[in-house]
Amino acid sequence: MISDRKLEHLILCTSCDVEYRKSTGFEEIEMVHRAIPEINREKIDIGLDFLGKELSSPIMISAITGGHPAALKINRELARAAEELGIALGLGSQRAGVEHPEVEETYAIARKEAPSAMLVGNIGSSHIEYAERAVEMIDADALAVHLNPLQESIQPGGDVDSTGALESISSIVKSMDVPVMVKETGAGISSEDAIKLEACGVAAIDVAGAGGTSWAAVETYRADDRYLGELFWDWGIPTAASTVEVAESVNVPVIASGGIRSGLDAAKAIALGATMAGIALPVLEAAGQGYRAVIRVIERFNEALKTAMYLAGAETLDDLRNSQVII
Amino acid sequence: MISDRKLEHLILCTSCDVEYRKSTGFEEIEMVHRAIPEINREKIDIGLDFLGKELSSPIMISAITGGHPAALKINRELARAAEELGIALGLGSQRAGVEHPEVEETYAIARKEAPSAMLVGNIGSSHIEYAERAVEMIDADALAVHLNPLQESIQPGGDVDSTGALESISSIVKSMDVPVMVKETGAGISSEDAIKLEACGVAAIDVAGAGGTSWAAVETYRADDRYLGELFWDWGIPTAASTVEVAESVNVPVIASGGIRSGLDAAKAIALGATMAGIALPVLEAAGQGYRAVIRVIERFNEALKTAMYLAGAETLDDLRNSQVII
Amino acid sequence: MISDRKLEHLILCTSCDVEYRKSTGFEEIEMVHRAIPEINREKIDIGLDFLGKELSSPIMISAITGGHPAALKINRELARAAEELGIALGLGSQRAGVEHPEVEETYAIARKEAPSAMLVGNIGSSHIEYAERAVEMIDADALAVHLNPLQESIQPGGDVDSTGALESISSIVKSMDVPVMVKETGAGISSEDAIKLEACGVAAIDVAGAGGTSWAAVETYRADDRYLGELFWDWGIPTAASTVEVAESVNVPVIASGGIRSGLDAAKAIALGATMAGIALPVLEAAGQGYRAVIRVIERFNEALKTAMYLAGAETLDDLRNSQVII
Amino acid sequence: MISDRKLEHLILCTSCDVEYRKSTGFEEIEMVHRAIPEINREKIDIGLDFLGKELSSPIMISAITGGHPAALKINRELARAAEELGIALGLGSQRAGVEHPEVEETYAIARKEAPSAMLVGNIGSSHIEYAERAVEMIDADALAVHLNPLQESIQPGGDVDSTGALESISSIVKSMDVPVMVKETGAGISSEDAIKLEACGVAAIDVAGAGGTSWAAVETYRADDRYLGELFWDWGIPTAASTVEVAESVNVPVIASGGIRSGLDAAKAIALGATMAGIALPVLEAAGQGYRAVIRVIERFNEALKTAMYLAGAETLDDLRNSQVII
Ligand SMILES: Cc1cc2nc3c(=O)[nH]c(=O)nc-3n(C[C@H](O)[C@H](O)[C@H](O)COP(=O)(O)O)c2cc1C
Ligand SMILES: Cc1cc2nc3c(=O)[nH]c(=O)nc-3n(C[C@H](O)[C@H](O)[C@H](O)COP(=O)(O)O)c2cc1C
Ligand SMILES: Cc1cc2nc3c(=O)[nH]c(=O)nc-3n(C[C@H](O)[C@H](O)[C@H](O)COP(=O)(O)O)c2cc1C
Ligand SMILES: Cc1cc2nc3c(=O)[nH]c(=O)nc-3n(C[C@H](O)[C@H](O)[C@H](O)COP(=O)(O)O)c2cc1C
Repeated sequence: MISDRKLEHLILCTSCDVEYRKSTGFEEIEMVHRAIPEINREKIDIGLDFLGKELSSPIMISAITGGHPAALKINRELARAAEELGIALGLGSQRAGVEHPEVEETYAIARKEAPSAMLVGNIGSSHIEYAERAVEMIDADALAVHLNPLQESIQPGGDVDSTGALESISSIVKSMDVPVMVKETGAGISSEDAIKLEACGVAAIDVAGAGGTSWAAVETYRADDRYLGELFWDWGIPTAASTVEVAESVNVPVIASGGIRSGLDAAKAIALGATMAGIALPVLEAAGQGYRAVIRVIERFNEALKTAMYLAGAETLDDLRNSQVII
Repeated sequence: MISDRKLEHLILCTSCDVEYRKSTGFEEIEMVHRAIPEINREKIDIGLDFLGKELSSPIMISAITGGHPAALKINRELARAAEELGIALGLGSQRAGVEHPEVEETYAIARKEAPSAMLVGNIGSSHIEYAERAVEMIDADALAVHLNPLQESIQPGGDVDSTGALESISSIVKSMDVPVMVKETGAGISSEDAIKLEACGVAAIDVAGAGGTSWAAVETYRADDRYLGELFWDWGIPTAASTVEVAESVNVPVIASGGIRSGLDAAKAIALGATMAGIALPVLEAAGQGYRAVIRVIERFNEALKTAMYLAGAETLDDLRNSQVII
Repeated sequence: MISDRKLEHLILCTSCDVEYRKSTGFEEIEMVHRAIPEINREKIDIGLDFLGKELSSPIMISAITGGHPAALKINRELARAAEELGIALGLGSQRAGVEHPEVEETYAIARKEAPSAMLVGNIGSSHIEYAERAVEMIDADALAVHLNPLQESIQPGGDVDSTGALESISSIVKSMDVPVMVKETGAGISSEDAIKLEACGVAAIDVAGAGGTSWAAVETYRADDRYLGELFWDWGIPTAASTVEVAESVNVPVIASGGIRSGLDAAKAIALGATMAGIALPVLEAAGQGYRAVIRVIERFNEALKTAMYLAGAETLDDLRNSQVII
Repeated sequence: MISDRKLEHLILCTSCDVEYRKSTGFEEIEMVHRAIPEINREKIDIGLDFLGKELSSPIMISAITGGHPAALKINRELARAAEELGIALGLGSQRAGVEHPEVEETYAIARKEAPSAMLVGNIGSSHIEYAERAVEMIDADALAVHLNPLQESIQPGGDVDSTGALESISSIVKSMDVPVMVKETGAGISSEDAIKLEACGVAAIDVAGAGGTSWAAVETYRADDRYLGELFWDWGIPTAASTVEVAESVNVPVIASGGIRSGLDAAKAIALGATMAGIALPVLEAAGQGYRAVIRVIERFNEALKTAMYLAGAETLDDLRNSQVII
């Protein structure tokens, strides 16, 4: 059953080493220290308008869960944090919610706890027919269509028919009332795919690159035969590389995610061209401890992001995006 | 006696560390993840026509053994696996079989067990006069002339006169009814040698590069004085480099081998220009356990190859060969 | 209180690991050995004229302390050493001395002990109004305006408003009777900032780059929450890179400092374009043992510098600056 | 006394770690494997004419010792080996022999034991007035003028006046009847110095680069204060780099030495442009065991050199020098 798998994922991601062994590449990127920033750190503004919503920070919570009783609490705490902070929150894949109305509440709770926050619905590229229901379920401000061919390849019996995916995306973009973005789930997006996605009319692209949570890793723990998962554990485009590639290839806003582990990583991602930076694993454990813990995590990201901006002499996110980095 | 040496080789290769300490270079090569493969993994076809034979997979079993009673069982099991899977199988050097008719059966068993599989005969470049007998012995579909100057250099009393080798190859190519390919045995082929071989009219080139079984290593264990073997343990052109060099220099099909340890390595080799990928050491131990074990090894290679193809958006081996790699 | 913080800094810098984990980059730079130096090492002269003062060596003691009773002894010993050797000595930030006349003596002692040595006053870029008093306090030969945005960012309640800093520097340069230089405190100066500083009319630039004492590190030990300090521990431009960048961008003399740990590092810095090389941490412990120990440290630096010069065939500092280095 | 120092050097070089911590660079250089060498290893000839003498191998024994009773035995055994093998042998600095006739025999023994071998005399660039006596003492076939500014810099009271060295070399070249070469002692020769030496008319240049015996290291053990020796332990131009640089800058024959530890290193050095390869440390211990041990060492070098030549398809040293290497 889907919802049991969801629970397994939550347990594995909080208990086992599920991260890529190779790195995002951010540690090889250096921002340039400005000894005379010539700005006032108190005036640094990290608020932005993203797909029509005002956000207090470019740090967003990436899609994590839903569909299992255990997900209810997580989504509730994440939503409370998002509401209090004014940041964006991605829900986990809503397929379970559409197919099993009895678990709808595990998603809908988010909107109840976060009446004004930006909520992003989530549906797989092969279940695009659920898109409308997904958006309604949480009164979503935007919808993310996720791509996860790596996980589907490793997971026994995964859905490994990707034909027609671009067409589905293209049509859903046209039919939906809310902006539709596309996100990977940890293996990254190449410039070639980004260009095709932009041509489909997507509103934003979340690269979700390699270096953070590895879905080959997660599925390795679930498999009877760990061979394939071990072999593909590190498959994917590192987040820093994917961010640069995609940002240089398309004009739609880019979300950098996958292994973003501090506000300093986020600052580097934005300096490389991203508009937003998403995190999943870093808030998962905190969510179990309650929304206050989630808020503390996000505030640390914001704090470090502002510190990096101050030291790079960037007063606004645009300044940061135009600042120099050394690769 | 040759056949005792053959047994020693089998024992050493299954019990000792006989691999290069330096790498094939494949781990530095990354394929490009395609988040939207736009293909159906079930439709991926890894079958191909190679030198006039239909094969179910580009993974072939490289030349291993023959000439000693212990080789009989190995060749029987390898042949059963090749027959059942529809893949190509290289026999070990047939010199012993020609010179000692009493061990002929250790080779001939392969054709008995694999009436329809592609069998590749094997003879050293300095015993080319045995070529015809070698082909007859197993009703070979092709003949591989092997080059092993490294082993001969380290092995006391080895044959280290290579003069006239190209001429022999040139003449045997013309006189044989089956296609004649040339293979190294683990030290790789340079583009310069590949060009000369193509000019000789060879039908294919198996680079058998450095990074897998090291014949300097094997002979180190057999030597009284281990000095020279230790010193040249790592001599040779890494397989990934040799594959690129040769594929870019000649038009004949290239077999990548030497340290191919997974279907992912094979996929990278094909993306670098190879047509086939050969493995010796990885099937040797399995052969001792019976042909079912050999089949399991090959199936894992096929499985991983298809997974890599799916994630790279390659439906055919040609697509894979034209796909992008990052070096 | 400032003076307690000063004491804490002294204690932390002598007891804890406060250095960058990343390197200055000097170990990747090689000078070119000259087998036939064609000079006489006894004739090597490392004396120079710096901002109008005759110095016996380009090694200077960087700004360290003042403002706390414990600083009195340190400045006394450093000053005695500077006087005996004929080298330049930078005093620590004099803000405390200006704001609290009762600790003035902890600075003024330096001039008493070093009537003829080159003394450099020190004031933060946001307390430039104290400049005149600072110079008077020690009858300074020059004034260093220090920049420390990294420390101020990590230190709770630090001064993180850098607006107007360039203007202040520009005006103080004009109003002062002594030469005004600008120094970082361990995070380095970019070419962009160096160019702006030169335009302000500064007499010299001390890059004080990353690789030696890390002020993020020092403040990590002082913080309740070590998170931010840990994260920015390694923020900054490595000294070797900063030295090259600044020396190539401006015409004013450059002081290389931050992680200079031997006369060989100093020689490399000068070969990269610096005029002087400053050290703080290496003399701090010695100062506690008395001026003889400080002299021994400096003499080792001089000795190694001369050895490097001899082996590079450089008889003068200008020869050294024009000598070849391999990066 | 000189001769005690000589003994100390012998003891330190056989008992302590006196080698550079950085490498010669040879392990980063790869020769190209030729799968079809097209030559007969038995016909490989490593004999050559060097400065008018016929040698059986390009491997020579570099200058080691003389001047102390302990040196007598070493030179006797080295000479016997050189005579039997037909290779060149360099004597240690003959200054002691000139200044103290009672130790002359420790050098002269070499000629007695090796009536026909090529013997190379040795004198420091600052004792060039001893040149004629040095040659006579051993009826030398050539004279090496050694340069050792690194050792002299580290050794307390060393001779660190190099002025006039080039002039001395120039004049001695003209006045001597035997060919005069110049050698470093382990810190390498830059192309700039090589060009100057060629202009002086030297007959050959021995780069004696960094990566083998470090004279800063040796002197570290002898010093009361190990500071300077430790700091300069790794000073110098790595042998592989020095060999390439010098071979490309001048037309006189180049001897590669300093850290040559196998015939494979020697092969690489020759492929990089050297004519000869010298070894000191590797024969020192063997010399203590007698000339048979020395012969065994040299034969291993010859054997490995020939193996590398065979596998690179080089029948002559000229072929080897023209063969391809990958850096
Ligand atoms: C437990 C867990 C569940 C996830 N479920 C989804 C999902 O349902 N839909 C989706 O688009 N991404 C999902 N993701 C992927 C994340 O959104 C994110 O792209 C990925 O984890 C990389 O970010 P990270 O390294 O910060 O974890 C999930 C991640 C985790 C850790
Ligand atoms: C035990 C053993 C015996 C071999 N004998 C032969 C042989 O007779 N002829 C030949 O062409 N190659 C022979 N090879 C070399 C292989 O065909 C192959 O080129 C080499 O082992 C590199 O592949 P690997 O790293 O997958 O083992 C042998 C390899 C092994 C391990
Ligand atoms: C204990 C201590 C106190 C310092 N105080 C000052 C200061 O007051 N003003 C200043 O400009 N730099 C100050 N510095 C920074 C040094 O002048 C120098 O730029 C920095 O420590 C890098 O050099 P190092 O790696 O040799 O220590 C201080 C350094 C230390 C170790
Ligand atoms: C014990 C010892 C004594 C040496 N004495 C001399 C010498 O007197 N004259 C000289 O030119 N080189 C001398 N050398 C340097 C060697 O000739 C050689 O250049 C250097 O040791 C590097 O070679 P290696 O790494 O093979 O030892 C000596 C080397 C050793 C180990």
